[in-house]
Amino acid sequence: MSDPAILTIAEAARAIERRELSPVDLCEAYLARVERLNPALNAYVTVTASRAREDAARAAAEIVHGGYRGPLHGIPIGLKDLYDTAGIETAGGSKVLRGRVPAADSTCARRLRDAGTVLLGKTNTHEFAWGTTTNNPHTGATHNAWSLDRIPGGSSGGSGAAIVARLAAGTLGTDTGGSIRIPAALNGCVGFKPTFGRVSKAGVLPMSWQFDHPGPICRTVEDAAIVLQAIAGYDPADFATVPVPVPDYRAALHGGVRGLRIGVPRDQFFGLLDPEVRVAVEEALDVFRALGAEVLDVDAGYDRMTVLQAWTVCNAEGQAYHAEWLAKQPDDYSPELREVLSTPLPDAVGLANAYRASYDIKEAVRGLLERVDLLLAPTTMRPASKIGEEQVEVDGVQLTTGAAFASLTMPFNIAGVPALSLPCGFSAEGLPIGMQIAGRPFEEPTVLRAAHAYETATDWHRRHPEI
Amino acid sequence: MSDPAILTIAEAARAIERRELSPVDLCEAYLARVERLNPALNAYVTVTASRAREDAARAAAEIVHGGYRGPLHGIPIGLKDLYDTAGIETAGGSKVLRGRVPAADSTCARRLRDAGTVLLGKTNTHEFAWGTTTNNPHTGATHNAWSLDRIPGGSSGGSGAAIVARLAAGTLGTDTGGSIRIPAALNGCVGFKPTFGRVSKAGVLPMSWQFDHPGPICRTVEDAAIVLQAIAGYDPADFATVPVPVPDYRAALHGGVRGLRIGVPRDQFFGLLDPEVRVAVEEALDVFRALGAEVLDVDAGYDRMTVLQAWTVCNAEGQAYHAEWLAKQPDDYSPELREVLSTPLPDAVGLANAYRASYDIKEAVRGLLERVDLLLAPTTMRPASKIGEEQVEVDGVQLTTGAAFASLTMPFNIAGVPALSLPCGFSAEGLPIGMQIAGRPFEEPTVLRAAHAYETATDWHRRHPEI
Repeated sequence: MSDPAILTIAEAARAIERRELSPVDLCEAYLARVERLNPALNAYVTVTASRAREDAARAAAEIVHGGYRGPLHGIPIGLKDLYDTAGIETAGGSKVLRGRVPAADSTCARRLRDAGTVLLGKTNTHEFAWGTTTNNPHTGATHNAWSLDRIPGGSSGGSGAAIVARLAAGTLGTDTGGSIRIPAALNGCVGFKPTFGRVSKAGVLPMSWQFDHPGPICRTVEDAAIVLQAIAGYDPADFATVPVPVPDYRAALHGGVRGLRIGVPRDQFFGLLDPEVRVAVEEALDVFRALGAEVLDVDAGYDRMTVLQAWTVCNAEGQAYHAEWLAKQPDDYSPELREVLSTPLPDAVGLANAYRASYDIKEAVRGLLERVDLLLAPTTMRPASKIGEEQVEVDGVQLTTGAAFASLTMPFNIAGVPALSLPCGFSAEGLPIGMQIAGRPFEEPTVLRAAHAYETATDWHRRHPEI
Repeated sequence: MSDPAILTIAEAARAIERRELSPVDLCEAYLARVERLNPALNAYVTVTASRAREDAARAAAEIVHGGYRGPLHGIPIGLKDLYDTAGIETAGGSKVLRGRVPAADSTCARRLRDAGTVLLGKTNTHEFAWGTTTNNPHTGATHNAWSLDRIPGGSSGGSGAAIVARLAAGTLGTDTGGSIRIPAALNGCVGFKPTFGRVSKAGVLPMSWQFDHPGPICRTVEDAAIVLQAIAGYDPADFATVPVPVPDYRAALHGGVRGLRIGVPRDQFFGLLDPEVRVAVEEALDVFRALGAEVLDVDAGYDRMTVLQAWTVCNAEGQAYHAEWLAKQPDDYSPELREVLSTPLPDAVGLANAYRASYDIKEAVRGLLERVDLLLAPTTMRPASKIGEEQVEVDGVQLTTGAAFASLTMPFNIAGVPALSLPCGFSAEGLPIGMQIAGRPFEEPTVLRAAHAYETATDWHRRHPEI
């Protein structure tokens, strides 16, 4: 076999199950790539080679003895550095928590370990997840594998970069305002923010407990389904999870989109856009029409300005989480994050109103999703910008990176509905473009089905960066 | 047949289905009681006699034509005045909203109408639900049917009083800090606060969107199961509801409690108690042991003081909801509610921390409920106090009515878990005593099963006030 790191999770899993591929060989193939490419990409902040080799050896031994845990058995993964990993530093890309070694795994890390995965390391993140570029002053910038001078998006930039550079078969990111979907869009892979409460965030460093969503970043829709299957489910240690039965996500992939009603919220999501992004998404809509979906314009039913109120909630929760450290060791924060976490806040009644405004958006989006099965929109306003740029251009307009990259993703964090980003084209410069598909709460299967139908009909996911 | 208002919902439903009882006769029996007894009790603020007769006539006609909607077909109900009812005043026991006639039903009102119920009227509530006595300066005090100089509890006092005085076969209350369970305990009936998100609060006047729970107040556990069945389920118009399948609650009643592990959180719930309440609940625990349940002491795992942080959230949301009216028409509020809604609040970061503290309690209680199946505790620290008393005694200690009646109920609002109050004894003065049984999120069937087993083994629910 040629380099097995070329395989998707689904492909590698098949080969492992048939004993055509040893988890040990797969692990070594990935470790070799990590050793060769991570210095240039900085996708990992911690490489856990000896842990990976232990995991792989155990997985291989189990296979030899007839034990097979399922499609993640022996699959090498990376975890965003926000996920607690027992015995392995988890610093959230911060200086404040440098050297912090949790005693216990986060629920997701534990579930992935139980599923038989092989941990390659911890992936880079924007400082404490508070940004969209993964240009981290403490851990260094992560680079986009399609163009090393470009950002990989964020905050889960290391996970996105690791996936497309084939430094991991699967990764987890976290998504509070888009931090899974933005790197998926900017790196050209699949990022899935599930329903709020579908996956436990226990043991994940918080950005905002009201909007944080853990989820997978993978190469294909099927891979995302496989990883989601392992991490989904009720966890008493996360207040937001609910004992909703976990369906078979992989079984849901193959239904096609015939008859599905796909709503396109143009007013809220198609205003200011890079022209290449607009074209790519419009062409994707044509693909869906050709596949038999009904594509119709809808009004998302909320004032776009209301989204800012959700950022107020997010910021207040961030300030609450960081207050003590900010007071004691302000110099351990970057000036940028210090400034973000000094954003003036309303009084308590104003904050209560901001929470309420976010519930209003949630209800508006859920109401809209009673009239259509799915919503489809661009993931970001533009492809990846250059590392170090603080203002970026979108169709001639200068925006902050936060506005350019997170404005279209945050509404689905507020709504708490599942939203998956997948590739839908490339810019003339060869940079990936992503679109997002959102569905009803806990209807991840419908989102996966539509995404898989599009992926099957197109070739974007087959392109790899030359690295 | 003697007065059919003596029948439970389940009994009346059987008679209606068999055409032994006409919905029209049942309605008239209730209307006659309302006419005779409501002047003394003030359980209803609005009696909708003509609407009731229309509903009953339609229900009767459907039966004649072979249509049968299920066990609420032709059943007379009352709705707390917080539930929007199309064309019928819904003022929340306030002066501010006096004369407000909603155009549309709340989701619960609509679902109960669709289930075939007959609406007798709107039941009294503490002003805007902000209190536990239902001593309402705008709509008058509701009286306890066991002793007319006593409170019926609150805030859903009218619903509780209507049930035991047989002025309705079933009612809905709302429970933000105990407002369903407190009247259930003080009137001697069954009140069920389901899991947060199990029942839609769309179209219900809010007290606090973080803690408001709609739910039934009925005579028996079976009746509560029947009403819950009709109102439970996903509603896109309520951000908190989730598409968790709705089980058959009535089918769940008959499993018994053998082998169930019932945790008794003595540290948090059995501190200061009226001695008669303590004895009644301890005797109930003996009944559960005799029925085969395993009763064990547990630590609820949170500091009781943290509960106060949840009241801060509740108060901030209340101040946000009322801000405009309080500014414009302060004199339309009672001085008491004005004072409550002027409680000093922390800054936004403090409020974000209060939200977080409430999530911590939620996780602690959910964690505890992984080790036991149910939690059992007194519902209130004491039986009903006298109308007009602002300070009440509990075992020699003077407390506010809020502290005496809501301290033991609020934790399960914070936890968001289902909690049902049912009668477990009477004081020497002949006042009802209640206990509450809480279960895992969305495990209403287990709560109902345990409550039904106890109810079947005891006679408390067969006692009626002589009125």
